[in-house]
Amino acid sequence: MNIDILTLFPNMFTGVLNESILKKAQEKQAVSINVVNFREFADNKHQTVDDYPYGGGAGMVLKPQPIFDAVAHLTKENDARIILLCPQGERYTQKKAEELAKESHLILICGHYEGYDERIREHLVTDEISIGDYVLTGGELGAMVIVDSVVRLLPGVLGNEASSVHDSFSSGLLEHPQYTRPADFRGLKVPDVLLSGNHRLIDEWRQKESLRRTFLRRPDLLAQYELTDKQKKWLEEFQKNER
Amino acid sequence: MNIDILTLFPNMFTGVLNESILKKAQEKQAVSINVVNFREFADNKHQTVDDYPYGGGAGMVLKPQPIFDAVAHLTKENDARIILLCPQGERYTQKKAEELAKESHLILICGHYEGYDERIREHLVTDEISIGDYVLTGGELGAMVIVDSVVRLLPGVLGNEASSVHDSFSSGLLEHPQYTRPADFRGLKVPDVLLSGNHRLIDEWRQKESLRRTFLRRPDLLAQYELTDKQKKWLEEFQKNER
Repeated sequence: MNIDILTLFPNMFTGVLNESILKKAQEKQAVSINVVNFREFADNKHQTVDDYPYGGGAGMVLKPQPIFDAVAHLTKENDARIILLCPQGERYTQKKAEELAKESHLILICGHYEGYDERIREHLVTDEISIGDYVLTGGELGAMVIVDSVVRLLPGVLGNEASSVHDSFSSGLLEHPQYTRPADFRGLKVPDVLLSGNHRLIDEWRQKESLRRTFLRRPDLLAQYELTDKQKKWLEEFQKNER
Repeated sequence: MNIDILTLFPNMFTGVLNESILKKAQEKQAVSINVVNFREFADNKHQTVDDYPYGGGAGMVLKPQPIFDAVAHLTKENDARIILLCPQGERYTQKKAEELAKESHLILICGHYEGYDERIREHLVTDEISIGDYVLTGGELGAMVIVDSVVRLLPGVLGNEASSVHDSFSSGLLEHPQYTRPADFRGLKVPDVLLSGNHRLIDEWRQKESLRRTFLRRPDLLAQYELTDKQKKWLEEFQKNER
């Protein structure tokens, strides 16, 4: 997969792209990541990339020309999914990460402070994505989130060191509690069942605690989840305890 | 404000913390950000920070000792909000950013690959936060999102260069479309009203387009929004066009 990131702050990416999974994925050539300062594509003398909004108002707006021309340059040889990071975009989910992981070329466009000229939205990009309902200074952190979540899904990228413990959103329920040694840490103890060696009981405890955590913290996830008969019984028990 | 970030990958933060608003906020001493490798607090010979899960299963689990001791060290002189980045946490929102911006000391704990020993959740942290429903390699990007969104709210941090154009989630509606020069970019034109100089009409157009965009893209936001009579009429118009 090829990923191009268009930004005015290329140095923001150095730490994240050169550590851990993203570093290894590039070394293994599972992905090639290219950070481009789109100011280089500005065709005016002062390399201006933004200008005042038509109709007045606070803030600056990113001009269409530098971004249109940067994208045209990057799609000369092959098509791409062209993704605008913006608060007005669709909310990013694991399902979208899985969809993007099937592409061969992604272009991520990051604004910073400024708004985007609407013609970029309407006539250039294929997707508009927001990583969440909070205000960030620019699209760069959103681009990093997309890169990390997509690259770890590419074939050959995840080794044994990166386990599935975080995969809450893949199973549809939140993860059950995890414990490691010592069994007694300053008086705080591990549940007996986990020390029992009885794998059937351990498995049942984990399933139940996974459901309990989802019920308590993210009941919205249960609405889309098909419960087994056993899970339905547990859920009734949790609901009774709530009252 | 003091922010301590506990991570096993401190180098991931160099780019993001040394650019743009976060760089300026530190220079202005509005915030002091300290990245700590919690491996330094491991009290065993090999500085091990994780171990196998009790009860078996894939993946490793972060041991309680290094994280408990790192937090104890960082809270010797003052209390702190102690925030665990994890997929099972409450979903981060602008409201939460505003709440955290009132604190004087934040500690952000980032796991990486591994799960957390449950005793960290139950007996150490004050908040568990997830930045969205997608799987990331670690908590580091989540910590960066929290730092960026919180620091930009601190008094004196945002200058004029960082306008309110991205503040979709503060007003409750998505931003209206923005345009800048040229009025005709390769045949793509700016709406006439924005060139009219009539500020009453421009303002009305913006309000209507802001509502239209929210209706089309994020109807969930409208549920919490109190509409004026004019907005109600516009909404009926949009709904009629949908049919």
